[in-house]
Amino acid sequence: MLKIGLLGCGRIGQVHARSIAQIDKARVSAVADAVPDAAKALAKTTGSEVMSPEALITSPDVDAIVIGTPTDTHYDLIHSAARAGKAIFCEKPVDLSADRIQDCLKLIQDTNTPFLTAFNRRFDPNFANLQSRIAAGDIGEVEIVTILSRDPSPPTISYIKSSGGLFRDMMIHDLDMARFLLGEEPVSVYAVGSSLVDPDIGRAGDVDTAAVTLTTASGKICQISNSRRASFGYDQRVEVHGSKGMLRADNMLENTVEIATETGFRKAPAQHFFLERYEAAYRAEMVHFVQALVENVPMSPSITDGLNAQILADGAARSLELGRPISVG
Amino acid sequence: MLKIGLLGCGRIGQVHARSIAQIDKARVSAVADAVPDAAKALAKTTGSEVMSPEALITSPDVDAIVIGTPTDTHYDLIHSAARAGKAIFCEKPVDLSADRIQDCLKLIQDTNTPFLTAFNRRFDPNFANLQSRIAAGDIGEVEIVTILSRDPSPPTISYIKSSGGLFRDMMIHDLDMARFLLGEEPVSVYAVGSSLVDPDIGRAGDVDTAAVTLTTASGKICQISNSRRASFGYDQRVEVHGSKGMLRADNMLENTVEIATETGFRKAPAQHFFLERYEAAYRAEMVHFVQALVENVPMSPSITDGLNAQILADGAARSLELGRPISVG
Amino acid sequence: MLKIGLLGCGRIGQVHARSIAQIDKARVSAVADAVPDAAKALAKTTGSEVMSPEALITSPDVDAIVIGTPTDTHYDLIHSAARAGKAIFCEKPVDLSADRIQDCLKLIQDTNTPFLTAFNRRFDPNFANLQSRIAAGDIGEVEIVTILSRDPSPPTISYIKSSGGLFRDMMIHDLDMARFLLGEEPVSVYAVGSSLVDPDIGRAGDVDTAAVTLTTASGKICQISNSRRASFGYDQRVEVHGSKGMLRADNMLENTVEIATETGFRKAPAQHFFLERYEAAYRAEMVHFVQALVENVPMSPSITDGLNAQILADGAARSLELGRPISVG
Amino acid sequence: MLKIGLLGCGRIGQVHARSIAQIDKARVSAVADAVPDAAKALAKTTGSEVMSPEALITSPDVDAIVIGTPTDTHYDLIHSAARAGKAIFCEKPVDLSADRIQDCLKLIQDTNTPFLTAFNRRFDPNFANLQSRIAAGDIGEVEIVTILSRDPSPPTISYIKSSGGLFRDMMIHDLDMARFLLGEEPVSVYAVGSSLVDPDIGRAGDVDTAAVTLTTASGKICQISNSRRASFGYDQRVEVHGSKGMLRADNMLENTVEIATETGFRKAPAQHFFLERYEAAYRAEMVHFVQALVENVPMSPSITDGLNAQILADGAARSLELGRPISVG
Repeated sequence: MLKIGLLGCGRIGQVHARSIAQIDKARVSAVADAVPDAAKALAKTTGSEVMSPEALITSPDVDAIVIGTPTDTHYDLIHSAARAGKAIFCEKPVDLSADRIQDCLKLIQDTNTPFLTAFNRRFDPNFANLQSRIAAGDIGEVEIVTILSRDPSPPTISYIKSSGGLFRDMMIHDLDMARFLLGEEPVSVYAVGSSLVDPDIGRAGDVDTAAVTLTTASGKICQISNSRRASFGYDQRVEVHGSKGMLRADNMLENTVEIATETGFRKAPAQHFFLERYEAAYRAEMVHFVQALVENVPMSPSITDGLNAQILADGAARSLELGRPISVG
Repeated sequence: MLKIGLLGCGRIGQVHARSIAQIDKARVSAVADAVPDAAKALAKTTGSEVMSPEALITSPDVDAIVIGTPTDTHYDLIHSAARAGKAIFCEKPVDLSADRIQDCLKLIQDTNTPFLTAFNRRFDPNFANLQSRIAAGDIGEVEIVTILSRDPSPPTISYIKSSGGLFRDMMIHDLDMARFLLGEEPVSVYAVGSSLVDPDIGRAGDVDTAAVTLTTASGKICQISNSRRASFGYDQRVEVHGSKGMLRADNMLENTVEIATETGFRKAPAQHFFLERYEAAYRAEMVHFVQALVENVPMSPSITDGLNAQILADGAARSLELGRPISVG
Repeated sequence: MLKIGLLGCGRIGQVHARSIAQIDKARVSAVADAVPDAAKALAKTTGSEVMSPEALITSPDVDAIVIGTPTDTHYDLIHSAARAGKAIFCEKPVDLSADRIQDCLKLIQDTNTPFLTAFNRRFDPNFANLQSRIAAGDIGEVEIVTILSRDPSPPTISYIKSSGGLFRDMMIHDLDMARFLLGEEPVSVYAVGSSLVDPDIGRAGDVDTAAVTLTTASGKICQISNSRRASFGYDQRVEVHGSKGMLRADNMLENTVEIATETGFRKAPAQHFFLERYEAAYRAEMVHFVQALVENVPMSPSITDGLNAQILADGAARSLELGRPISVG
Repeated sequence: MLKIGLLGCGRIGQVHARSIAQIDKARVSAVADAVPDAAKALAKTTGSEVMSPEALITSPDVDAIVIGTPTDTHYDLIHSAARAGKAIFCEKPVDLSADRIQDCLKLIQDTNTPFLTAFNRRFDPNFANLQSRIAAGDIGEVEIVTILSRDPSPPTISYIKSSGGLFRDMMIHDLDMARFLLGEEPVSVYAVGSSLVDPDIGRAGDVDTAAVTLTTASGKICQISNSRRASFGYDQRVEVHGSKGMLRADNMLENTVEIATETGFRKAPAQHFFLERYEAAYRAEMVHFVQALVENVPMSPSITDGLNAQILADGAARSLELGRPISVG
């Protein structure tokens, strides 16, 4: 039985706790949170102990650590956990600075620490199925990847300010998805963006509408577009055009019901809430982490994946700033 | 060049004239209509001559006759035309009485007259494709046929009164489609029906909402449902469940545009007007008639198909009257 | 905290145990099964006690009973539980005999026992949404209900033999759905059926392909078709045609991925396994049961719903036998 | 009756002749082609006269000219026709050089010549419907336009060599569509491209796979992707994300039939042939031209639209060459 310590008992920590509860070979043994009540509540639900982060990380009752705390705490927690010999499941982004992720990467390699960068979308059953079919050659060689990704509504301005900006906060998921689907590293990134959804986002120095173009050495192309708003739900679509065909994953709708009236045929909106939309992905991601540890096999996405996505996000941000494509990789 | 005489210059006669205009090997040579202006107008468009029906039928300038006049005139016109040695394209229903169709059938066989019963839906590219794939074995043995057929809005009460009733006027198309798809003759028919759309239809002795169940000797089943009203357009769907799979043909929508808003994803209504919905079918039907004549090969659906559909419609009407299934065939 | 005793620890009992585990206000307190190991296993998972059925039913540690045992045991267990003053959640069918359900109904009413007939499909989020929109008047008056329901593959012949036949075992779900959607009791039922999937099913005296027509006093119509086989998954579709529009619920597919190649655009098959297809329904059904008990409000579907569906299934079986429609209600 | 002279009797000239044949207020009065037999054939079909281009342009029997000859002849023909006082319908591209289009534009304005640049896609019923709904405010402000456009298969290398390259030959349609949908002029264009479909295309100095990003002054974004190959047919999709919703137009499939088997649900491929896919658009485009002339109202797209699309195509080609975004407009 794998004993897992949860660092962070907020919304995402609770999601991971629920996932672990459904896995036979693992259980939550300890929890920590800056807010004592949050820790207590989750300890109660999971039948685990409240500890300080330091105690949790070094506890003999903890085999693996799930880091679900604010991004700026990841660096130190990763270092402590790796030195304490614990396996690490770390929420994305690993850090807002690629250099600091590089530091973590070195440590992870030196200490041979099992590490999962929690890009949950790779575990979405739809996207995972799509990627496995690319890998199986169902559409021949990948040529053009198109990613359409829109949040239902923008976060608060205070969140925006500490988020690292749209490219590092939101598009990083799509940049990782691009790498996942292209099967080849991007060598250039070009970004455009503007503030069309909320002028306050622009005033805060960020964009809310953006598009990125990636190219690879062999000439594959990826186009990504993002908006912080979509009236019809959480818009999450992926399409891959290959030499022999095309694969696409459409949105998950709220239900399968369709109504037909004089105005036409209407289906339900897309699921709005990211925890609902990616419920299966969060579960599958934790299953993978536990299974890889129990069976002692490599896990993926690695910290290198976390680093490479961050480098692309940094490149996109710099491209927008400079108004020209940036070489990466 | 096949010379065609059009009997009836109304809406359906004009449709056939347009179809013929697009066929290289045929032309309209003569037209006739009880309304002189209608005949004149179509003669002008087609560059043909106005004649009396009698003159047209016996004219040496006419090789084949298209009968698009009111149903109660079909019987006599078929007789005249067959005796005059002309090929016949006859709008459905051939007649409202199966006995009288039987008479026509005998004459057609005795005179060896090429005859097409114009069940246009068999020529719809979707339904024709579906049927050809059944015939090719794509779904194995046919087991259950489901036909959903709804008009956009009811006809006038005066039309209803002279129509022969829903089963003979409207469902006859679906009964023919059932025969086309089952690939085996029905042996029993059971009908239910009511007047839910317009009480005046009920008062006129007809139903506007009906369902029929057909069975064949080998145990195949067909369910048909009809309504004289569908707010979302002309609802014309067919589905066939077989031992190895299922084939279905969905509605033709007005366009491919979809809008997504907070109420969901909305596509256009179904095409409303039967002449638009079945435009390609009307064209293909005339192409088949001309081609069969020119190449001297059999044409289909035959007058026997017209008779058998009528027998099913009569059976359905009688089933509704008696409240029990009727044996046919 | 509502204490629930599970009678039957097989597949369906385990489903209910998982549902209860996710409900804050309820827990499994006791389990019973004719197979001791099955009971022990579920007791361990749920942290509950193994008891004999008799002890469980009368235990002060049990407030409500979930009956998931073979159908022929339901009658006695319902009687014991009602007399012991326990609320009852009973798997469908309540019994294979309408008379015996009538007995149970009388007892339930006399003892004022909270009772849920577990027609899980009413709790499917799609069908529930569809029905609530009918109730809200979104499509005006219901006119024609069409239910297409096909199992992925037939059960074993031994199962068939003790099942009560297709109408009582399989179509009963659709007959209940028909009642749920029509909003009015059927007054006549007509059934046809044959053995096209497996001749052994025919030899066992049952059909594997069937269609039923229901009518109500006001003239509403329902058509149901069933097959014991569908190559493309568990086919579960419902469509309601009303005076102002149409509502339909399509199948749940395995994922949202679509591939396009020279053969066209291909989506995933329908989910195959009923426990996966109706996972959300099973959960919602138990939530409703617990909530109704905790809040002391009526629950639905009632035992009367169980009885009425059984009467329709009996009518369908008799109609098939006699070859004519049967009056019911 | 508007008398139209056709310059060019090839495939596209024949399409326009068929469209004119269906318009009451217009007829083909004269045709010209460098290949005498082609001219003769079309003259016969249309009942018109064969003339030399020069005679046709100045003939009193010609009110309007349809230019469907090779691109490098457009410039001179436009000049002759405008000087002869004829209205002009000109196939796209007007010319491969923006400067030369500028010359034509000046002449057209000076001579007040009615001129239609035949960007047929604007007349496609789907795209036209989509654009009119944007204009009606159905999705609020346009924010992101996505255009996915793929040919079924690449043209010959000899065609490629004289085509002006992918951006001027193929993407120009999408660049015009972008302007049509953005409702605001692009100010920057960035292009990437590669030769993934056929290395010979690369050797000929062109790309076969490309993506372009456009931005407007107010921050709207457009992403276009092109491939010279799509196994599943002629892939022509457009999507517009706005502040209040999203509009998209999907592909036109060969038929509405869907087959379900153990591999899933399969629909037909997209229509392959551009003349079939855009049949309705070609017809509507000619109707607009004739109607605008007859009613003496402005026609659109204008020669300025032709020029602006060309400037974008030139910008895209230059962007690809220089590896950076290009300012336009």
